[in-house]
Amino acid sequence: MHACGPGINAATYKPTHFLWGFENHTATITLNQPSRKNPLTFESYAELRDCFRALAYTPEVMAVVLAGAGDNFCSGGDVHDIIGPLTKMSMPQLLDFTRMTGDLVKAIRHCPQPIIAAVTGVCAGAGAILAMAADYRISATDSKTGFLFTRVGLAGCDMGACAMLPRIIGQGRASDLLFTGRMMSAEEGLQWGFYNELGSATEVMDKAKAYATKLVSGPTFAHGLTKMMLHQEWNMSIDQAIESEAQAQAICMKTEDFNRAYQAFTQREKPDFKGN
Amino acid sequence: MHACGPGINAATYKPTHFLWGFENHTATITLNQPSRKNPLTFESYAELRDCFRALAYTPEVMAVVLAGAGDNFCSGGDVHDIIGPLTKMSMPQLLDFTRMTGDLVKAIRHCPQPIIAAVTGVCAGAGAILAMAADYRISATDSKTGFLFTRVGLAGCDMGACAMLPRIIGQGRASDLLFTGRMMSAEEGLQWGFYNELGSATEVMDKAKAYATKLVSGPTFAHGLTKMMLHQEWNMSIDQAIESEAQAQAICMKTEDFNRAYQAFTQREKPDFKGN
Amino acid sequence: MHACGPGINAATYKPTHFLWGFENHTATITLNQPSRKNPLTFESYAELRDCFRALAYTPEVMAVVLAGAGDNFCSGGDVHDIIGPLTKMSMPQLLDFTRMTGDLVKAIRHCPQPIIAAVTGVCAGAGAILAMAADYRISATDSKTGFLFTRVGLAGCDMGACAMLPRIIGQGRASDLLFTGRMMSAEEGLQWGFYNELGSATEVMDKAKAYATKLVSGPTFAHGLTKMMLHQEWNMSIDQAIESEAQAQAICMKTEDFNRAYQAFTQREKPDFKGN
Repeated sequence: MHACGPGINAATYKPTHFLWGFENHTATITLNQPSRKNPLTFESYAELRDCFRALAYTPEVMAVVLAGAGDNFCSGGDVHDIIGPLTKMSMPQLLDFTRMTGDLVKAIRHCPQPIIAAVTGVCAGAGAILAMAADYRISATDSKTGFLFTRVGLAGCDMGACAMLPRIIGQGRASDLLFTGRMMSAEEGLQWGFYNELGSATEVMDKAKAYATKLVSGPTFAHGLTKMMLHQEWNMSIDQAIESEAQAQAICMKTEDFNRAYQAFTQREKPDFKGN
Repeated sequence: MHACGPGINAATYKPTHFLWGFENHTATITLNQPSRKNPLTFESYAELRDCFRALAYTPEVMAVVLAGAGDNFCSGGDVHDIIGPLTKMSMPQLLDFTRMTGDLVKAIRHCPQPIIAAVTGVCAGAGAILAMAADYRISATDSKTGFLFTRVGLAGCDMGACAMLPRIIGQGRASDLLFTGRMMSAEEGLQWGFYNELGSATEVMDKAKAYATKLVSGPTFAHGLTKMMLHQEWNMSIDQAIESEAQAQAICMKTEDFNRAYQAFTQREKPDFKGN
Repeated sequence: MHACGPGINAATYKPTHFLWGFENHTATITLNQPSRKNPLTFESYAELRDCFRALAYTPEVMAVVLAGAGDNFCSGGDVHDIIGPLTKMSMPQLLDFTRMTGDLVKAIRHCPQPIIAAVTGVCAGAGAILAMAADYRISATDSKTGFLFTRVGLAGCDMGACAMLPRIIGQGRASDLLFTGRMMSAEEGLQWGFYNELGSATEVMDKAKAYATKLVSGPTFAHGLTKMMLHQEWNMSIDQAIESEAQAQAICMKTEDFNRAYQAFTQREKPDFKGN
């Protein structure tokens, strides 16, 4: 039990609205309604949000792979389950909903674990947002990624897209995707820096797990600070960011992992990091 | 007449210092002194600024194409008409001028209509800034785009270039262009994300109008919010941006266009958006 | 002697921990312990910081080339000279150290001279940070650039990396490099916008000096403002940046260099800028 909050028991956790796997310090979250391309529902939004929030207090999970069951990643908010009801809601209810979806992105960005998106097939709407909110993105060569809010009469500003997408692929390309809702090919995604890596659809999950394994073998406490600072420094001045990093790195220099690395180096060995 | 301010009568508007066209909800603004590659003058700066300001109150205009007459886009501030007089001005007069040019960029960014730059030939100085300030940029394959302020003894920080160009093409490439004033080729512009699309010089205008048509057929009220949020979230934290988008998207969920999209979907039809 | 602070006598300056050259208004700073790939030490960090601070009061230096002796640029903080001692330090001592390294980056960003990194071979750890902190980066085609803090048990947030690297190459690619500490090839660096230019290892220094010469022949006072505004506008809103640039450019319009450019233009000559 984590002293600072209620975490997940990674070995026994059984979510209702997605699949959970746990192996080698890596959790795998799989959206699981493959016949409908794994849409999000009110219930899955809420449970995903709560899961990522709990990960802040779950140190045995050191990396997360996010994927979709079957041939697709995620088709976004379901038209019947979500869009229909939204058309009938009051303003306070609507804001409750849009805040819940935003809270999912906040929880993804605030948990210390690096998140690896393993994208295949359709990655659309809120599904594209989930990929965007990850730290590392691997895609099948034939995936289609679309921020298609505009197609359902909404704006491109959904769950942080107008802030985050420009920082990943540049303001001009982000504007195009958000105004038109058009699909970005995997090749475009790679060239533009949205996807870090491409592979065949059958390889994507293996690549994602291999990347997670690499991170898990590193200094995971320090990784958590890397993630936090990438988040925190977003709208600091350069000078503020430099001071913030001086403090954050000084914290890391007091970890055992830093000492382990030095000792291993002097003995010409590979360090055995433990995340503390 | 718009209740909140004086708009343009798009069908009858006749500006003095540039050409105006209006068709299919799309305005076309054409800089029109082709023998001198369409330079900007004190008068055209002011009239363009006032035009873009008025567009905030002109809902029948739903997209704007910005182009140059003849074979070039815009050569920037005219050496004789602008630079000569500037060398003789007092500091308050100079600041009046630099603020006027900056106000043009602010007006371009603050009007709700997406702006599509159709670039051919020379796109230089303040002309390059106008392209940079647009939302979508199409260029002829043989265009030359230069932020050449340094060539006339000035700094690269003109009309927002040091803030905006790095977000479009990255800090390293922007630094090079702004320190040297060198020409960026269309091919570089495409690779770096400055240009969204290239075409032959004769195709550029058609492509720009086709893109405008695509946007105009979408939910234009929502497009206006997308544009505003891309602007507003520039220096927010991610968490602030997510809350801002929760509010902005909740606004869009109360539009008729959102309901139209849902109704069309349930009837397997294409939605007929009306921008309200 | 500069009225506002103690500068360097560029012709006679003899630093202890790196080489200094000065020719044609361009200073060359060469890290010089080639047998160990030019690591940084406590002493060289401090002397570099003081040197870049003094450059703010050294107008005869108008550009700086930063390079490494022998076949490599810089291997970063030395394991024996720096990492060993750090493992034994108190928290206040650690913070003194991380602030010193951050102050070097601040000094590089705050001096008015454009900094050109001439990268060959290994460019690692704090060495990669020095390259990142430069304004223009040229690399040998076979260089290896790694933000490898994670390899020694530390976080990727070192000396401003989590703020600056994402603005240069995008948030997704920066996250990968900072989480894994993997080497970026020169080709990746070019494609991603980290490197502005590649060349053979023997060409890199000549290319760097040629670029410096180009800048030195320009309006160097204005270049100093370009550099400052690229720094200052980092986390301003677009509207604030536009007002800041209106002021900065009005300052430049009161320089002799602006007038020189206009006079030269009217006489169809090349302007002879003097940096005032």
